Amino acid sequence: MSNPTAAMITIGDEILSGRTQDTNMNFLAKELTARGIGLRETRVVPDVVEEIIAAVNHLRKRYTYVFTSGGIGPTHDDITADCVAAAFGVNIDVREDARAILAQNYANPEVDLNESRLRMARIPDGATLIENSVSKAPGFSLENVHVMAGVPSVFKSMVGVLLPTLRQGRAVLSLTVRAGMPEGELAGPLRELNEAWPSVDIGSYPFNRNGSFGADVVFRGDSQAELDQAAAALREYLGDRELPID
Amino acid sequence: MSNPTAAMITIGDEILSGRTQDTNMNFLAKELTARGIGLRETRVVPDVVEEIIAAVNHLRKRYTYVFTSGGIGPTHDDITADCVAAAFGVNIDVREDARAILAQNYANPEVDLNESRLRMARIPDGATLIENSVSKAPGFSLENVHVMAGVPSVFKSMVGVLLPTLRQGRAVLSLTVRAGMPEGELAGPLRELNEAWPSVDIGSYPFNRNGSFGADVVFRGDSQAELDQAAAALREYLGDRELPID
Repeated sequence: MSNPTAAMITIGDEILSGRTQDTNMNFLAKELTARGIGLRETRVVPDVVEEIIAAVNHLRKRYTYVFTSGGIGPTHDDITADCVAAAFGVNIDVREDARAILAQNYANPEVDLNESRLRMARIPDGATLIENSVSKAPGFSLENVHVMAGVPSVFKSMVGVLLPTLRQGRAVLSLTVRAGMPEGELAGPLRELNEAWPSVDIGSYPFNRNGSFGADVVFRGDSQAELDQAAAALREYLGDRELPID
Repeated sequence: MSNPTAAMITIGDEILSGRTQDTNMNFLAKELTARGIGLRETRVVPDVVEEIIAAVNHLRKRYTYVFTSGGIGPTHDDITADCVAAAFGVNIDVREDARAILAQNYANPEVDLNESRLRMARIPDGATLIENSVSKAPGFSLENVHVMAGVPSVFKSMVGVLLPTLRQGRAVLSLTVRAGMPEGELAGPLRELNEAWPSVDIGSYPFNRNGSFGADVVFRGDSQAELDQAAAALREYLGDRELPID
């Protein structure tokens, strides 16, 4: 069985305006990679109903899993849950199990669980809840779409609960060699390695440190032996121009 | 004339694997916002020909500008320029002006400007070059698609050259008030402000610091007077629960 695939949708004008540097995508990407779930595409979309619905519907049909981040809080600009319900064509309303979880947060839920906070108990029909150990208000999964909060601490908490429940893939092995020479000199040798080990995926990621160009060469594949062989061949080529990885 | 709109495409398996935390999107977002160019959507796509072509063709028809980051180096996995040419259905080959720019980088261009490096002089027909003050190899603009490098220092250099040449919009004014209370209590008052100043866009961005929840309330719009009025109303509501912005 081939590895599961995934896409991520980040909902948030604050990311698109540059006000906030997103970090949830990188966190999720690492977690998925470690579990052999291939993140194939990510999108950031604005707080606009039609855009969110279109992205959810396009991506949920293409990938095993879709993960969303953001827009499930209590304020008027939190529209993700309603959009996901609309994308699936199902009803959404305050659900008793979600309301009960929210109520645990408050000494006086009759007063504190106001109309705005109750918005966070609005769950599409047929969804299952994703626990939030930080601030209670749950995320939810509807079929293959997993809806989580944008606040990084809450997002991480939800990912930690959710991922072990999903189908895992075979983790892709990887091995990195750092080259202290510009990509322009490396490119020829890398092309030869690429031809010699066709089942090893070889990526070259250039960097510029203190004015010197170098590149991290990442070997990825299913066979540790092949990664080791390809890396050894590169190391032989580099000689003392291999740099330590810090 | 309404403000220009924009989308960004980041090309890179290393972002999707979680190996690299992207920062180019946030940099570009801030620069565009400051110039009144509305970034409406961003995507990260893998190093896969069909995915890059599909994203370029979808987004270039929807937005005033499309910016790409990544995949224009000398190695076998650098396929962005060819994909952009294919998206437009135009030819791509080594171009003399780009080759001449690259040659400036080398003491001995006859030798150093090897086959791999010459890949960086491959420019689609009809494109104009984007200067790279860091490492010479240029980006390019083809119609409304602006193709830039992924290395952050080079990306920044290219954005700095490119943006002043594009149509600017009217910068959206913004004003932020930090509330030391959870969004669940703020949501009602924010909804009232939203109704009282319909032309002011009010976003609430929650945070969790040292276990305390708060929210940055961002007012955006064209009228400084209205932003000031809406913010003053929120400040009156918050009283001593307004927090300083660090």
